[in-house]
Amino acid sequence: MASNNPFWKELENAPLGTEKSLSEALDQLAFNDQGLITAIAQQADSGEVLMLAWMNRESLEITLQEGRACYWSRSRQQLWRKGESSGQVQWLKGLRVDCDGDALLLLVDQQGPACHTGRRSCFYFDLNGERLEVVAEPVVDPNTLYK
Amino acid sequence: MASNNPFWKELENAPLGTEKSLSEALDQLAFNDQGLITAIAQQADSGEVLMLAWMNRESLEITLQEGRACYWSRSRQQLWRKGESSGQVQWLKGLRVDCDGDALLLLVDQQGPACHTGRRSCFYFDLNGERLEVVAEPVVDPNTLYK
Repeated sequence: MASNNPFWKELENAPLGTEKSLSEALDQLAFNDQGLITAIAQQADSGEVLMLAWMNRESLEITLQEGRACYWSRSRQQLWRKGESSGQVQWLKGLRVDCDGDALLLLVDQQGPACHTGRRSCFYFDLNGERLEVVAEPVVDPNTLYK
Repeated sequence: MASNNPFWKELENAPLGTEKSLSEALDQLAFNDQGLITAIAQQADSGEVLMLAWMNRESLEITLQEGRACYWSRSRQQLWRKGESSGQVQWLKGLRVDCDGDALLLLVDQQGPACHTGRRSCFYFDLNGERLEVVAEPVVDPNTLYK
């Protein structure tokens, strides 16, 4: 959606290859009133959408520095290096920002399943006009992930 | 992430094909305190992630009924049938819900570009440890989208 922020507005017409410094970009990202921004994780080669999580500025900086996804856990209120306890690491292959600076897309190489249930993707329910249906099975036993 | 809601918790171990009614599922979705849930739009055949937007319960019901994406515009505070003024309609091919019921993934057939700038995807900036860079160009002149 169109942004009211002149930083993103001006870039709409910028030619391919136009650059801004990392620090300037981070300053202009539209973190919400809790200091968070949505982050989609997508398997870089297959295109499968794996999960949606949240980042604060610190977790985003860590992600870029370490080359692996680090989120902000809203339930635990702490940094969450994906896979630190389960081995489900997401190696960073690329990171995209959207047109109004309020969403991130992480292109990752997911080690093992992304979902805490042992399923490859967290999006394992299909919803249509009549029902919700389980449409994917665990690829590993979730009991082997968290010990 | 693991949900505290017993509805989603129980379904973690449910066999493939397990179903719940639409109304029960809608009642259990984790809309935030503004009544909204994140919705990712992905091109169904290519896997390209096109945009991230928000839905309330009404816009989700409209999406399922009409077979095209309808979001809730936070800036305009109204229902937003994607493409109603621009022709950038997203025909619905499938809709997924994640493990804790707080994110949606729409599989769509995007008509024309998804982005208001005329780019195919809204995620047209690359961010790395040094800079933000424009990595996609408009496929149509945005002036032809909104008249």
